[in-house]
Amino acid sequence: MIIDKLIDRIKETGNPTVVGLDPRLNYIPQFITDKYYAKYGHTPKAAAKSMYKFNKYIIDAVYDIVPAVKPQIAMYERYGIEGLKAYVKTCEYAKLKGLIVIGDIKRSDIASTAEAYSDGHIGRVTVVDTEYEGFPQDFITLNPYLGSDSVTPFLKDCAAYEKGLFVLAKTSNPNSGEIQDLLVDGVPIYERVGALIEKWGSELIGQYGFSSVGAVVGATHPEQAKRLREVMPHTFFLVPGYGAQGGKAEDLAVCFDKEGLGAIVNSSRGIIAAHMKDEYKHCYGDERNFAQAARQACTDMKNDLRRCIQP
Amino acid sequence: MIIDKLIDRIKETGNPTVVGLDPRLNYIPQFITDKYYAKYGHTPKAAAKSMYKFNKYIIDAVYDIVPAVKPQIAMYERYGIEGLKAYVKTCEYAKLKGLIVIGDIKRSDIASTAEAYSDGHIGRVTVVDTEYEGFPQDFITLNPYLGSDSVTPFLKDCAAYEKGLFVLAKTSNPNSGEIQDLLVDGVPIYERVGALIEKWGSELIGQYGFSSVGAVVGATHPEQAKRLREVMPHTFFLVPGYGAQGGKAEDLAVCFDKEGLGAIVNSSRGIIAAHMKDEYKHCYGDERNFAQAARQACTDMKNDLRRCIQP
Repeated sequence: MIIDKLIDRIKETGNPTVVGLDPRLNYIPQFITDKYYAKYGHTPKAAAKSMYKFNKYIIDAVYDIVPAVKPQIAMYERYGIEGLKAYVKTCEYAKLKGLIVIGDIKRSDIASTAEAYSDGHIGRVTVVDTEYEGFPQDFITLNPYLGSDSVTPFLKDCAAYEKGLFVLAKTSNPNSGEIQDLLVDGVPIYERVGALIEKWGSELIGQYGFSSVGAVVGATHPEQAKRLREVMPHTFFLVPGYGAQGGKAEDLAVCFDKEGLGAIVNSSRGIIAAHMKDEYKHCYGDERNFAQAARQACTDMKNDLRRCIQP
Repeated sequence: MIIDKLIDRIKETGNPTVVGLDPRLNYIPQFITDKYYAKYGHTPKAAAKSMYKFNKYIIDAVYDIVPAVKPQIAMYERYGIEGLKAYVKTCEYAKLKGLIVIGDIKRSDIASTAEAYSDGHIGRVTVVDTEYEGFPQDFITLNPYLGSDSVTPFLKDCAAYEKGLFVLAKTSNPNSGEIQDLLVDGVPIYERVGALIEKWGSELIGQYGFSSVGAVVGATHPEQAKRLREVMPHTFFLVPGYGAQGGKAEDLAVCFDKEGLGAIVNSSRGIIAAHMKDEYKHCYGDERNFAQAARQACTDMKNDLRRCIQP
């Protein structure tokens, strides 16, 4: 079960942090971009090569102190095909370094179309007599608005290839409540979706009591997260919204159980752009060591989270 | 306004049909796949080249009698990077032939991440001093579960680059109601989403009174579609579910107004796999003319729809 591998890695590192690999060109030190602009001009190819190189520096600096990375595919799709090549290479390199890869793709489609996404993202595609893997991820995120038809087609590949899902329940954005908080017979939609997620994951529960079908639960709504932790006892949470979006360690402690398990917390720019902040300048001298700032930010985040999480 | 261009093309062809370019390897005649398997082996590259070639035959056979095509990106993502190259080439070729391209991508993310998707899919991405287009589509589909944060970031690019959206309201799949039909104060979620879509599109209304922000409304739920037509007077519908999924022309007539406008109906395998059905075998002799079956299927669909749509 991939959820067990993720939890093992969290226990090993003592750090329930996932590093969001969402690079933007303005985060990337000039010594990287200059090289690729010189070689490929001001092109999507140069941008994509720079993003991959940047990610490689970050991964090399943090792979032994965090359990997982979460590349956000939108940041790569922005640069078209070249960007997606950098996405694939980033996933491959992270896996090579022993990290769990959570592909933040938030795909949503139904039936045989969902199967096509599953083939490409967590399963295999067959060409006549040969099988191929498309995007090498361990977990992917999904959007449940279309109902069970948009999630159940992925479960077979989760079982067959030891993969997992994080399905959106309650997101971290300010107006996530427009749809997710609407009350149906006194019960908010996100809680109903939570119940569906528990059901979808019921056949994929691992040794720690959590399922390989997890939920996305934002750090910015602690009361709601607390309620979801109660009604989704077997569901592991992927928690966005810490740091830049305003979520605090105190707020998201409710996502964890008494064993200190139950969630992994994402930080993207707080870690990968740490080198741009004055408070992290001391971590590195030469610009080429910029990723040491990311390493320090991972340790700081670990300490911040551990302050509020048992045991 | 792109919605006006779409409506103009519908008027010109008299056919509110969009051809879903969702190829599967088993739809593709052997004379196409044999060529690429011989050249590239049983690889995703050979599969992707075959898909593009297949699409090209279909486009050449139908471009003068339908207004638009809707490639489903999942079918291409299934084959990884190579598949996505075929997706881009398919969009480019369809545009070259004067077709409106509706990219069925159902993306969903928030704020600056949504902006990244918008840059890549309907806007431009800037590398230092040069702008690039990623995926050349006219419209894209979006999933609204995350609220306004997941739709409004796209509106600027719709205005700047004459692009449009179709946002999921009520989908055609059997259990779409699990979330979409839940009642909030007596009003179903899909209707509340419909009201949001009307609002999101209010600044992008064209000469025919319809907005470039449209809605996906399944053909398999006629009572619900009828209600949505009433509460979303400025919203053009993209209607999936005709044919293979069970939606009939009689059922989806409610999506159109008195002028016979208001919706475009998708058919995928009913058109692009028509050559595999006995009833269309007579349309072509040599396998190389297989796409004549798709042409006949477009005409048959037009006649079937026109039977039920005014004027």
